[in-house]
Amino acid sequence: MIQTAYVAPWAWTGGALRRDVRFDVDADGRIANVGDANERGEPLRRTLGNALWLPGLVNAHSHAFQRGIRGQTHRRAPGENSFWSWRTAMYAAAQALDPDGLYAITRSAFAEMLRAGITHVGEFHYVHHQPDGTPYDDPNELSWRVVQAARDVGIRLTLLEVFYARAGAGKAPLPQQRRFCDTSVDAYLSRVDTLRAAGVDVGITPHSIRAASIEQIRELVAYAQEHDLVVHTHLSEQPRENEECRAEHGTTPAGAFERCGAFARPRRFTAVHATHLDEDDFERLSTQSVCACPTTEADLGDGILDAPRLASAGTSLSLGSDSNAIIDLVQEARLLEMNDRLARGARCRLNDDEGALGPVLAHAATRGGAVALGASSSGLQEGEPFDAVVVDLDDPFFEHVPPAHALDALFTAGTSAPIRQVVVHGREML
Amino acid sequence: MIQTAYVAPWAWTGGALRRDVRFDVDADGRIANVGDANERGEPLRRTLGNALWLPGLVNAHSHAFQRGIRGQTHRRAPGENSFWSWRTAMYAAAQALDPDGLYAITRSAFAEMLRAGITHVGEFHYVHHQPDGTPYDDPNELSWRVVQAARDVGIRLTLLEVFYARAGAGKAPLPQQRRFCDTSVDAYLSRVDTLRAAGVDVGITPHSIRAASIEQIRELVAYAQEHDLVVHTHLSEQPRENEECRAEHGTTPAGAFERCGAFARPRRFTAVHATHLDEDDFERLSTQSVCACPTTEADLGDGILDAPRLASAGTSLSLGSDSNAIIDLVQEARLLEMNDRLARGARCRLNDDEGALGPVLAHAATRGGAVALGASSSGLQEGEPFDAVVVDLDDPFFEHVPPAHALDALFTAGTSAPIRQVVVHGREML
Repeated sequence: MIQTAYVAPWAWTGGALRRDVRFDVDADGRIANVGDANERGEPLRRTLGNALWLPGLVNAHSHAFQRGIRGQTHRRAPGENSFWSWRTAMYAAAQALDPDGLYAITRSAFAEMLRAGITHVGEFHYVHHQPDGTPYDDPNELSWRVVQAARDVGIRLTLLEVFYARAGAGKAPLPQQRRFCDTSVDAYLSRVDTLRAAGVDVGITPHSIRAASIEQIRELVAYAQEHDLVVHTHLSEQPRENEECRAEHGTTPAGAFERCGAFARPRRFTAVHATHLDEDDFERLSTQSVCACPTTEADLGDGILDAPRLASAGTSLSLGSDSNAIIDLVQEARLLEMNDRLARGARCRLNDDEGALGPVLAHAATRGGAVALGASSSGLQEGEPFDAVVVDLDDPFFEHVPPAHALDALFTAGTSAPIRQVVVHGREML
Repeated sequence: MIQTAYVAPWAWTGGALRRDVRFDVDADGRIANVGDANERGEPLRRTLGNALWLPGLVNAHSHAFQRGIRGQTHRRAPGENSFWSWRTAMYAAAQALDPDGLYAITRSAFAEMLRAGITHVGEFHYVHHQPDGTPYDDPNELSWRVVQAARDVGIRLTLLEVFYARAGAGKAPLPQQRRFCDTSVDAYLSRVDTLRAAGVDVGITPHSIRAASIEQIRELVAYAQEHDLVVHTHLSEQPRENEECRAEHGTTPAGAFERCGAFARPRRFTAVHATHLDEDDFERLSTQSVCACPTTEADLGDGILDAPRLASAGTSLSLGSDSNAIIDLVQEARLLEMNDRLARGARCRLNDDEGALGPVLAHAATRGGAVALGASSSGLQEGEPFDAVVVDLDDPFFEHVPPAHALDALFTAGTSAPIRQVVVHGREML
């Protein structure tokens, strides 16, 4: 039974921009039918102004707790100022968290995401235990807090539960890394079993090639395959990571994951960052998914990934807010294209075969994220949960922009500011 | 006589962040006194919430009419997709303007600037004559429209009145460039005389090294010197511009301007872009001003200027919204730093001698722009007109950000969205 018929003057649905679309939403919050707004008079029509409707945005990579250090890591220190010195500041924040503190900052970050149009987040969660590494009475204490924060905000969550074992090849974890570490793969998988049994949507997540051994990664990948779960990892974010990997494994991080069988299933593996790939890695990742986090990759001096080459090789691209200094997937999408223009000195880099750019960026911010998180939908299509974002075309940003160009304008020049309403599973959240 | 005593919980005044500041504003809209908010009880105290007050932002480089093609230049065309193909689309928009149309789009752009905290704009104005190059009955017709748009919006204007003569060395203007061109330097200066006599704040603006001869630039620089006016030009935006300049003049664009005496007066010359400088250019520009436009420089595939090297050489840095696809100097400031991190793989690049970053970026967005436009102030100090921006610290963006870090957070992670009020010459504009 149709509960509400939403009328969208413009909608990007099923990958195409359409005028006067009607979304019939049933009592379960699903799209029963996508129709023509002019076609018939529904009793419960609801319009939210002159707007462009998009599928809910999907944030494929977040560390919610890092929201707590927004703007607080930019004082120049003596010596190297890099990703690695930033990590020291970030570890201090991670050390200071208690369960209530983690819940509070995660809830803030998720609430900010929802207001920015994000309806589904992949939380790459690695702070598990007490500061000295001792598990809490419930070893999933902090994971439950993340789950609770998502529920209380009303955002969909894929918990990318992180496995972390070492500081690098043959190195025990640093003191500041102890609380990230389970005692064994079995201890970790036991926590994952518990979370899954409680209905939490979990992804298997070796933190990075430096934080786990090949044997451990192989076990994790096998578990993910057995239970049809996605696998995420940080991959080739920094040159030093590649050098250390080559010294240990004689190949790149993507090469090492390939050896572990991580690419056996199409698009169930997501490499986060991929800013320092070698030639062979583009082929290796061509059947998989890459999550770019352009604002964080700039902040941390990581570099610019070759998104057009990945896309043309067949890799599925998604976006993440990562450090959450900035929470705005519209900007992440824009910078995916714009940073590439800076690197190559040319324009219109990610455009599709028809020459269009906006739909490619919108796709990365929606469907690409859903692919990365193993969700079946995110296209405002029949049968899907009604997760949607309402972009106000009466915002002065769109003055002088023909509606047919609104998608390009939003994703090449905009921010999330003109988002006026966000719907999750049929419920208006703002 | 004090008309209003504004109370700022936090203010960036005179280049320092201070708590509980009181700005006594006189009936003429000037700051009569900067004091301690706790010190004495003014009869007409006015507070605008828990806010950080900044000087009004100064936009040193704008082409207002290009606001009309926001989001409409991103369809991939066969062949080259670059700055030069973008220029074709931009010229089509310039061709289509009539006086009313120019007024309307300029007013829209200036209004958007004001809402984004910009209190002073340098409009680099080059559409002067009818589409075929014939002057209007009043040869300043379109310049007056720009002046009127600024007055109607209430934004300060420096009219960077452009001189344009040719398509390149020995090349007559293209048909689409005819309306930019005066018949001679004298005809141009006669227009400038008229504008100045009417009280318009004018800058002398040879469009670029390709658009004027050395002799013409020399005459323009001499006039600017005689009348104490600033000189602006587009400089080394694209490699091709440098190659053509070297072929014609045997030196870089900065080298050619040096020969014309453009650098005789400290900080009265502004090079816009400077994305492709050679070794000697850094020394040449060390006593002058450079205006970076990072979002446009990304959009057009121009590249990344070496802002830290310019700054350490002594060059004054300012910011511009340029194409106005994006109108947000907070983002421009952020990307000045962040694009450099992308290029160099390191963090904390523009930080000052004390290690601070936020003040450097805030300076570029305020005082640096005032320097470029030849304005004597922009620091929220005694004797200055009260031009101010009120940043709402209760905006969720600042949650978990200690106020002492608010400047860093805003300029490294923010946008202009938390700006709640803008004051121009003592008048609240929003």
